[in-house]
Amino acid sequence: MKIAFVVFNDMTLLDFVGAYDTITRLKTLKYKTDLRWDICAYTDMVRDNHGFKIIPDKVRNNLGKYDAVLVPGGVGTRSLQNEEEFLDWLRTAAAVQYKISVCTGSLLLGAAGFLKDKKATTNYMEYDSLKQYCLEVVRERIVDDNNTVTSGAVSSSIDLGLYLCEKWSGPEAKEEIRKMIDYKK
Amino acid sequence: MKIAFVVFNDMTLLDFVGAYDTITRLKTLKYKTDLRWDICAYTDMVRDNHGFKIIPDKVRNNLGKYDAVLVPGGVGTRSLQNEEEFLDWLRTAAAVQYKISVCTGSLLLGAAGFLKDKKATTNYMEYDSLKQYCLEVVRERIVDDNNTVTSGAVSSSIDLGLYLCEKWSGPEAKEEIRKMIDYKK
Repeated sequence: MKIAFVVFNDMTLLDFVGAYDTITRLKTLKYKTDLRWDICAYTDMVRDNHGFKIIPDKVRNNLGKYDAVLVPGGVGTRSLQNEEEFLDWLRTAAAVQYKISVCTGSLLLGAAGFLKDKKATTNYMEYDSLKQYCLEVVRERIVDDNNTVTSGAVSSSIDLGLYLCEKWSGPEAKEEIRKMIDYKK
Repeated sequence: MKIAFVVFNDMTLLDFVGAYDTITRLKTLKYKTDLRWDICAYTDMVRDNHGFKIIPDKVRNNLGKYDAVLVPGGVGTRSLQNEEEFLDWLRTAAAVQYKISVCTGSLLLGAAGFLKDKKATTNYMEYDSLKQYCLEVVRERIVDDNNTVTSGAVSSSIDLGLYLCEKWSGPEAKEEIRKMIDYKK
């Protein structure tokens, strides 16, 4: 399994890192020894909403080659949802099996057209913004509609990561990883 | 107030980001309008334990000019605790008012000599490793001994951040930030 972790300017770093930390432990703990991933971006360098500087592994690469794509949220989504060049790049993920977002990352999945026939969720303050893009906004922490998996505000990133650990490797994997990071039930 | 967020090779990214996300909201929500921070490192580029690439704001800078220094944990601490050049750089923080760590970051505070007369904690699997460096190992999620604040395993980073939000700006700030990131009580 190969995952594309998408990063972009003015993202919220914790949206990405909660899921990244938990999911990548599937490899270090040998639940998924074939797990690989790239940090993927549309720009050569990415700065989060406070200027934290990230060098992505891949830039404007074809996302169609991954099994999963994960998009975090952040204030940057508000402009990116209207930037066709960025969205065209994101649309290269159209055939990807697992389309995943944290927080307002769902606005980007939506703007790319990936949520048209899907139930989805987002940051609790942005339910109205998501309506235009999806079949139904569900006010839950995690919504999984046939492998399109969206989650709520920032800290839900950890819950989403643990949810995917269970989905991909079973309840034991989830529980071991939860204990390892000492995350409350 | 000015904070040095220390990053280093083979760190655990979530150790840093949970505290970074919550503390920096003190500025965006205007609880501490004068809050500033730098991402500080001993090397020009930093890669976390999976190779995630970070460009620090400052390299080998004098940490004595900050009001707080925050050190995350990760497998990289096991070698860094014996690297005198790195520790000499960290020791420039000797006069810093708030010395803070997440997870095994306390091994680095300890190796720098900052915990000699302090109670402290660390990752629950590394209590024995911390003994040599501190007055007493306390098996709690957060230990605050006269502004030397240490916390437990990975996800305690968010709790530590919220604890510091309350310490520095009061319970209302903590609660607003907790709700904003939708973190469970």
